[in-house]
Amino acid sequence: MPTKLGKHTLRLDSAPSVLSFAAVASKKEGEGPLGQKFDILNEDTSFGQQSWEKAESQMQKLCASKALEKANLSPDSVDFMFAGDLLNQCIGSNYGLRDLSIPFLGLYGACSTMAESLALSSMFLEGGLANVCLAVTSSHFCSAERQFRFPLEYGGTRTPTSQWTVTGSGSAVVGKNTAPPYVKAVCVGTIEDLGIKDLNNMGAAMAPAAAKTIETFFEDTCTGADNYDLILTGDLGQVGTDLLHQLLARDGVTLGHKHNDCGLIIYDRQNQLDINAGGSGCGCSAVVLCADVLPKLRTGELHDVLFIATGALMSPTSVQQGESIPGIAHLVYLSSEPGRKGVL
Amino acid sequence: MPTKLGKHTLRLDSAPSVLSFAAVASKKEGEGPLGQKFDILNEDTSFGQQSWEKAESQMQKLCASKALEKANLSPDSVDFMFAGDLLNQCIGSNYGLRDLSIPFLGLYGACSTMAESLALSSMFLEGGLANVCLAVTSSHFCSAERQFRFPLEYGGTRTPTSQWTVTGSGSAVVGKNTAPPYVKAVCVGTIEDLGIKDLNNMGAAMAPAAAKTIETFFEDTCTGADNYDLILTGDLGQVGTDLLHQLLARDGVTLGHKHNDCGLIIYDRQNQLDINAGGSGCGCSAVVLCADVLPKLRTGELHDVLFIATGALMSPTSVQQGESIPGIAHLVYLSSEPGRKGVL
Repeated sequence: MPTKLGKHTLRLDSAPSVLSFAAVASKKEGEGPLGQKFDILNEDTSFGQQSWEKAESQMQKLCASKALEKANLSPDSVDFMFAGDLLNQCIGSNYGLRDLSIPFLGLYGACSTMAESLALSSMFLEGGLANVCLAVTSSHFCSAERQFRFPLEYGGTRTPTSQWTVTGSGSAVVGKNTAPPYVKAVCVGTIEDLGIKDLNNMGAAMAPAAAKTIETFFEDTCTGADNYDLILTGDLGQVGTDLLHQLLARDGVTLGHKHNDCGLIIYDRQNQLDINAGGSGCGCSAVVLCADVLPKLRTGELHDVLFIATGALMSPTSVQQGESIPGIAHLVYLSSEPGRKGVL
Repeated sequence: MPTKLGKHTLRLDSAPSVLSFAAVASKKEGEGPLGQKFDILNEDTSFGQQSWEKAESQMQKLCASKALEKANLSPDSVDFMFAGDLLNQCIGSNYGLRDLSIPFLGLYGACSTMAESLALSSMFLEGGLANVCLAVTSSHFCSAERQFRFPLEYGGTRTPTSQWTVTGSGSAVVGKNTAPPYVKAVCVGTIEDLGIKDLNNMGAAMAPAAAKTIETFFEDTCTGADNYDLILTGDLGQVGTDLLHQLLARDGVTLGHKHNDCGLIIYDRQNQLDINAGGSGCGCSAVVLCADVLPKLRTGELHDVLFIATGALMSPTSVQQGESIPGIAHLVYLSSEPGRKGVL
């Protein structure tokens, strides 16, 4: 049974294991710093499909199958899958995962989906509701651009605050406590909105939610940045990262060199074209987590990691109607140590 | 702790209570058979807002607040809220609930969202993950028509198989076992797709999922229609209902007079204009459940009810790209009897 700490944190006393994980990505991600770490790297961003949306579904299908294969599990042995993506009505997940015949709980958490699905999977394990859960998400540059901004053919100029949507999918299988990485705690975020209205500055819209969730978790657990090896936000990019540090500083919280952001890790901003403020999309935090961070937790290269994926909860319609952009951030505390060893 | 029955059913041995519930609706729903039963009935479908999308958010806000008020609970005392809707990026929920500051787990289950959110809330209670959860959803005829079909101004003719999207919101507060109605079991659905491609015939697209979930639950629990007072599907309408009975008959399962469908209950199809095959939308099963069924379970007028909300998981884009429409159906078993009394 979980133990509630403070206001919004649940300590998962059984410390479920992330049994396996997989990351799928494409050309631009392959040219970035993590290029060698993906399970499947497809140079062709269409993934052999006839539309960008179908390509995104295909990525989720490949990624979920790969994670199950790595855990040596058949779809039949999975109790629930949690998945979602950025596309209208989450068609990336609905079509990508329909053949698996696993009980399906669809999510919409925008770019926070990897944390939301991983948190729910882990909570289901902790509550005795499941023995095995699957968490999946994805994003695709081409399907996201034409849905949220402009058709690619339009060739719109990108602002310096804009971020490049990652073409990629991440998935994780969560099961009973057996081997690292372990999920030690989760902190589900609240919707935060400081009034940002710029669709080309998602980092700024999401930073307040990240700050809120990190502060809540630190207060709830009586811990601070010093207790962790890595505090990894989802896809704030450079603008959102700067803002996060400002917001936290105002409340006397510092993350220092412990902090990094998936949007700043996935690409080489100096040498790759048009990245601007960094990477973004559900796939951004998903592939960084599944290709880079979870492996390091498994080997013990990292010990205690806070993974905080952030989502911007607007739609093009809400922005056109003059609404500001609400953000959300969910936190998952991952550790190489089982049980009550480690920070909590 | 829950007990897994058969393949996909979880018996919730603590039998969490639905502490309170509320339903908000508008003019057309007010003129239907349930007209006197809504907590809030607004003749003006704009709900005082400047767009249909904002009207939908406003409905969720009113509905969630009303359910909390009826349970005499402040937002602070709610551990998690589960919500989603049909709008792109679920802006009905994201904007409608942003001021509550409750940890938020966004869902996308299309018209199955009331069952998905109620199932997750109940499972969280059962697993000791929460003491109080809030489940919310909504739909709005005007926001749905322009997003999924045509702008209202276009005045398109409606086909006989089409369904009328309910303008309404339902919400339920789930807490520890105290008073009826109790949630005794849940059966989370799998994605089913028999190849229907007609965007004006959602009932047919969702019927296979409803049949699958009902059959799975009956097998898992060794029960049948005779064990229940009411087997209530979400929003299959007349076409989907006929198809459901055909699909079940093929497998030797009969529901007989125990079955009804929210889409056939919400409007007076003989006397209300343009209803055609019935009602639909996330709000359809939500308001029928919260305005009519939960009250009858509380008073004991109904004893054992299977609530199976169905969702069609396509988007206009996926349909335009020639894809068929996958469906999903989640089942929640509600009872007026606590603990191990009753069917399970």
